[in-house]
Amino acid sequence: MNDRAWLIEEDLYSPEKELYWETVFALSNGYMASRGAIEENHFRPEVKSYFGTYAAGVFDKYNKEYQAIVNLPDFFNTDVRVNGEPVRMKRGQIENYSRSLDMRGGFLRRKFDFVSAGKGHKTRFEVTRFISKADPHLAVLHYAVEPLNYDGEIRFDNVLDGNITNIDFHVSGYQLRDEKYHFIDDDHEVRENKDGGGLLVRTKVTKHRVCEVIRCELREDGALKEPKTSNTVKKRFLSHGASFPVRRGKRYSYLKLVSVRTSRDGGADLFLACNSHSAKASQKGYERLLSEHKAAWEDAWKSADIVIEGDERDQRNVRFNIFHLIQMGNKNDPRVNVGSRGLTSEMHYGNCFWDTELFIMPFFIYSDPAAARALVQYRYLTLPAAREKAKKLLFKGALYPWMSSWPGHEQADYWEYANIAVHIVSDVIYGLMNYYRATGDDKFMLECGLEMLVETSRFWESRLTWSETRKKYVMNVVKGPNEYAITNNNTYTNWGCRSNLTEAVRMLAWAKKRHPKEYKALAKKSGLKDKEPASWTKIAKAIFINYDKSRDLYIEDDHILEKEPVDIKELKPGKVITTELGFTWDTFLRLKIVKQADVLLLMTLYRPEFTERQLRNAWKFYEPLTLHDSSLSYNTHCIVANELGDVKKSDGYFQQTARLDLEDVMENVFLGIHAANAGGAWQCVVNGFCGMRMAENHLEFSPNLPARYKSVRFRVAYRKNQYEVLCEKKKVSIHLVRGENPSLKIKGNRIET
Amino acid sequence: MNDRAWLIEEDLYSPEKELYWETVFALSNGYMASRGAIEENHFRPEVKSYFGTYAAGVFDKYNKEYQAIVNLPDFFNTDVRVNGEPVRMKRGQIENYSRSLDMRGGFLRRKFDFVSAGKGHKTRFEVTRFISKADPHLAVLHYAVEPLNYDGEIRFDNVLDGNITNIDFHVSGYQLRDEKYHFIDDDHEVRENKDGGGLLVRTKVTKHRVCEVIRCELREDGALKEPKTSNTVKKRFLSHGASFPVRRGKRYSYLKLVSVRTSRDGGADLFLACNSHSAKASQKGYERLLSEHKAAWEDAWKSADIVIEGDERDQRNVRFNIFHLIQMGNKNDPRVNVGSRGLTSEMHYGNCFWDTELFIMPFFIYSDPAAARALVQYRYLTLPAAREKAKKLLFKGALYPWMSSWPGHEQADYWEYANIAVHIVSDVIYGLMNYYRATGDDKFMLECGLEMLVETSRFWESRLTWSETRKKYVMNVVKGPNEYAITNNNTYTNWGCRSNLTEAVRMLAWAKKRHPKEYKALAKKSGLKDKEPASWTKIAKAIFINYDKSRDLYIEDDHILEKEPVDIKELKPGKVITTELGFTWDTFLRLKIVKQADVLLLMTLYRPEFTERQLRNAWKFYEPLTLHDSSLSYNTHCIVANELGDVKKSDGYFQQTARLDLEDVMENVFLGIHAANAGGAWQCVVNGFCGMRMAENHLEFSPNLPARYKSVRFRVAYRKNQYEVLCEKKKVSIHLVRGENPSLKIKGNRIET
Repeated sequence: MNDRAWLIEEDLYSPEKELYWETVFALSNGYMASRGAIEENHFRPEVKSYFGTYAAGVFDKYNKEYQAIVNLPDFFNTDVRVNGEPVRMKRGQIENYSRSLDMRGGFLRRKFDFVSAGKGHKTRFEVTRFISKADPHLAVLHYAVEPLNYDGEIRFDNVLDGNITNIDFHVSGYQLRDEKYHFIDDDHEVRENKDGGGLLVRTKVTKHRVCEVIRCELREDGALKEPKTSNTVKKRFLSHGASFPVRRGKRYSYLKLVSVRTSRDGGADLFLACNSHSAKASQKGYERLLSEHKAAWEDAWKSADIVIEGDERDQRNVRFNIFHLIQMGNKNDPRVNVGSRGLTSEMHYGNCFWDTELFIMPFFIYSDPAAARALVQYRYLTLPAAREKAKKLLFKGALYPWMSSWPGHEQADYWEYANIAVHIVSDVIYGLMNYYRATGDDKFMLECGLEMLVETSRFWESRLTWSETRKKYVMNVVKGPNEYAITNNNTYTNWGCRSNLTEAVRMLAWAKKRHPKEYKALAKKSGLKDKEPASWTKIAKAIFINYDKSRDLYIEDDHILEKEPVDIKELKPGKVITTELGFTWDTFLRLKIVKQADVLLLMTLYRPEFTERQLRNAWKFYEPLTLHDSSLSYNTHCIVANELGDVKKSDGYFQQTARLDLEDVMENVFLGIHAANAGGAWQCVVNGFCGMRMAENHLEFSPNLPARYKSVRFRVAYRKNQYEVLCEKKKVSIHLVRGENPSLKIKGNRIET
Repeated sequence: MNDRAWLIEEDLYSPEKELYWETVFALSNGYMASRGAIEENHFRPEVKSYFGTYAAGVFDKYNKEYQAIVNLPDFFNTDVRVNGEPVRMKRGQIENYSRSLDMRGGFLRRKFDFVSAGKGHKTRFEVTRFISKADPHLAVLHYAVEPLNYDGEIRFDNVLDGNITNIDFHVSGYQLRDEKYHFIDDDHEVRENKDGGGLLVRTKVTKHRVCEVIRCELREDGALKEPKTSNTVKKRFLSHGASFPVRRGKRYSYLKLVSVRTSRDGGADLFLACNSHSAKASQKGYERLLSEHKAAWEDAWKSADIVIEGDERDQRNVRFNIFHLIQMGNKNDPRVNVGSRGLTSEMHYGNCFWDTELFIMPFFIYSDPAAARALVQYRYLTLPAAREKAKKLLFKGALYPWMSSWPGHEQADYWEYANIAVHIVSDVIYGLMNYYRATGDDKFMLECGLEMLVETSRFWESRLTWSETRKKYVMNVVKGPNEYAITNNNTYTNWGCRSNLTEAVRMLAWAKKRHPKEYKALAKKSGLKDKEPASWTKIAKAIFINYDKSRDLYIEDDHILEKEPVDIKELKPGKVITTELGFTWDTFLRLKIVKQADVLLLMTLYRPEFTERQLRNAWKFYEPLTLHDSSLSYNTHCIVANELGDVKKSDGYFQQTARLDLEDVMENVFLGIHAANAGGAWQCVVNGFCGMRMAENHLEFSPNLPARYKSVRFRVAYRKNQYEVLCEKKKVSIHLVRGENPSLKIKGNRIET
């Protein structure tokens, strides 16, 4: 393997780029996360840092209705002093600097020599940190220290500071100390001891408790030593200090083990649990903890990696996206989902969107089906809140929220999204069916999926309107994927609705016939009446679809054809149109522009239902109108262009996607990794270049690789088996890696029953 | 004349209704205004009062873009003490109380006997106040005082307090001391002397200066006396105190003359102007000032009154509406317009709307054409700001603001109104043409009107979109009068646009032929090219109009027919739908409901362009869908119902209009008089019951009075003549009152050329 494509390296200390690196270097194991801020930066007001430490599912309310993921005390927060002089940029010199993310091993390592300003004392540091993939509650920080030209004293101050606040995204400058966004209660607890101590904080409204315990140990040339320690306790604040004499030529190791538990994990005494946990970790020791962590990452990569031969830059960009996707997964907790930036920032307050089902879940379905299952189950568990939302808006059944945290009440505060972007409902069902088709998870379908299908179908039935003019069911006042419209009969939405109704009827019929007991239980639980599926069939057949037969073209909605034509090139450069300018929303609505893939997205989702000619006609019509004012647009265009044989355009869109974050194309990576785009990059390669398509009972590949690629190799899970797929130009080789399901056969470019 | 229908009386002191009375008793001469708050209430924290004192056109910015009419120091603010005891409800007893607005004379009078709590001293008060209709800069407050059972001392404190703030409508409780809404600068000036003094304040951003000077005098049994005076000066604050001995059986008169001038009036030394003004007023004396004021009102009533024989309640309600309409007029200042609540509150920050052209201006056109001219001229003077708005939104020509103060920049902060309720443009032109047709004011048309027609036509040309599908010009993304829609091809808007273009072409042709010199000047000034009118003609012919030929029905817009049907009775009682619930805007948009008259309003505006059958078809279709969620809806329905012969329904809608404010139907009169509704009440009688219609070259009447009416009598100005019209059941008598234009003839129920 080529190591360069596994490493993301900062080789010059560049504090002005720190915010970018903090996102790129963010670490997470799905349970908790920490942005990649340099440990000592808490003590460096001259460097702009955005510290972010999160525990999945720990939200607090920032007003009566809406929640934000809470920025927790940063357990990596550490100050270091050499002979009393702080290790800071402006107080000395940094030499031989490098900071690198080892994506294969999932850890971050910083190396530098610090030459103190006063006495010229030179110290070599190697700082390693990781958030354990082997143990969700464990984070580890390790300083290897070597005094190069002096004897003296080194001091570490390990801080847990509950006075941190969330960022206020509404003001520029991204304040971290805005009291309005301080979600940590006065009611807290600090404990201290000679090895460290802990801080237990509580969120103000949701009353989650979060306990962080640190346990530190010092070694000299491998032998345990007792440093001189002293603790400072203030309100919501603990600092554990340790100082020790150092001698030239000796090697010192200072280890901080972090144990985190929250009230969401259950268990009464969080301190007790953390203390016992860190004691066990201490027994294992740093080297073993790190190797267990690396082994867990190796395991994940086996199923998730995409190996591209022929373009190192693409390889690294794709891998970077996959690295962050892996970090977003959490198969153990179906009460959390993937926020729009994963756990790498507070953007969108940590809420998830349709991004999950359309762009993120596919990656997990094929690389980590258990994590995908947790994401689908999240939608099942949030069904009660979706029912409440439907009722509040005078509809029946379940209307999923546009933005969702926990327990799933609507978190979007604009009616233009919260109330009318109803395609979220069929997007959720698309995710369910996509998961179900790939895994054949009948148990989940029977226990959870059917109820979701029933409740969403009820919603659609109440949301549609019978049009006497058209003699069809119409769907008025919706926002489709092209958010630059408030429109009627958005084809994406109507098609999704129809598919939702049809799948409900089909799966209910299947259950009734094949699993009568479970069907009966479902019917009882949901009060399902026989006439309901019958009605849904009737409605599904009569839903109005905007289609121009003479052109064999699907029309986006009732309005697009009559909008004011405009050259989109004229709009972009002058930035007359941008989502930032709220006061020209009407301009968006009036002009013949498409914000992001809409009809084309529909066609990729339900690909078998459209002919290639229809796809081509749609491409010719919509692609020139599309502004790509969303990171969710490029990957669809990459996939469609590839299928239509335009490898150059396909590659162009792929580059936009794959480079987006690591190369900071949108200049906003400091606000977090674009989770959906990361999934989109995976889709570009797998569904785009390698042409993977799933039909009802088979999976197939028809690669069309960029000329410079020799091959693309990756694994896919399908119906309890795992396969390795090797795509070379137009040739595909598939072989079984692991199998539980012998009824599947590999036939040419297909895996089928 | 029947006096009861001229008086609005509060006959029981009822502080809990004070906010209502403050609006009802608000006085204005168009230049300045004061809500009817009791003078002494400033010193009574136990009574909830909303003090409002305004000078037309004195706005300040409440943020970067938007302005509010400024609440100025209340010059009526007075504290009264009898033998040291304050004249307050809770400190004694009020007997023989009455407060009445004499609408005929335009003054407010309060009578009461105050029995002090301590010593039982009884004093008779008669407090009269008015804002002079004869002298725009003058306000007068007069206390007639009689000690009934004691000798002692009375003291007046006359306060000018610049620490008053505007109301914050966003919080409940209507705070008057919210610093955020304090528009009066630190930079101010106080002057004092033995008779009173003055306060000169400056608005913070707009830097208007406002000077209020008070001059007080005391009389005993008619003879001038010198009270003992003392002044208190604080920041932005003057209190002029006067005390004097009183004896049982004597009558005392304490007169406060108020002079107001602002920097908008021109003149360098505002104090000097006010002082000289109040000295002159003082020479005239109270009785003469009052009689001049009453004479001016009498004059106004002659032209504006409607005399209804047969229903005293209707008479009073209609007169009350006319009273406030008269108060809103200001023929001297075309830089001000009529706010949505006149000068009776800060609602909508004192801005004017289309209300002016459609509902308020008609009253002035027929009763006070000079005041109507000032309103049209206001739109001419704000043309530059309308040009700026069009440019900012990428259109050509002039786009008038939805909410307008001075100099006419958009004051609405929602794009759903500011940017897309573009019918405001043709509403302004409707007002212009309505004024022009009634007055024949060629001079105004040539000097101002043509330029408005040219610039608005240019706007429309750039706002329309050619539809290849329909082979027509369409108008997308608009809000019509039915504000429960964001729609395409709203018929009201498209019709108005077409009329605007057609009138522009017609008037330009007229000017070119009949006034070539003025035409040439206009063409030069506005850069008019010959091809422009030609293009407008072409466009006007090809504008898409929603019309169903098979039903001979005009359709409101592209969407209404396919909306979800709903029984509007179900909506109102549960208040599921109300404009207060912003988060269900989508519900408004989705349901087949009409907020307020839309197609029906169009038909009343351009009545000759529709057949009676079309009117009837529209009535049958729209009336059952209409929620009347606006005070601008009832009067249109009254007029249409009357024409269609449904006198009962017509009367029902009339009652909603006529009673709205005086009987506080909407329970929000404390927030001011609904100006458009007041004009609507006038329209109900004149255009509804009396069937007045204006065509290109005649004015006609076809009454259809409620059964209980014997007759309705009123005057109308038309083409430089004034007529008295007497409608009795179905008979009309018209006679000329004043005439300058002998070419007009009375023929039956018509006045024609």
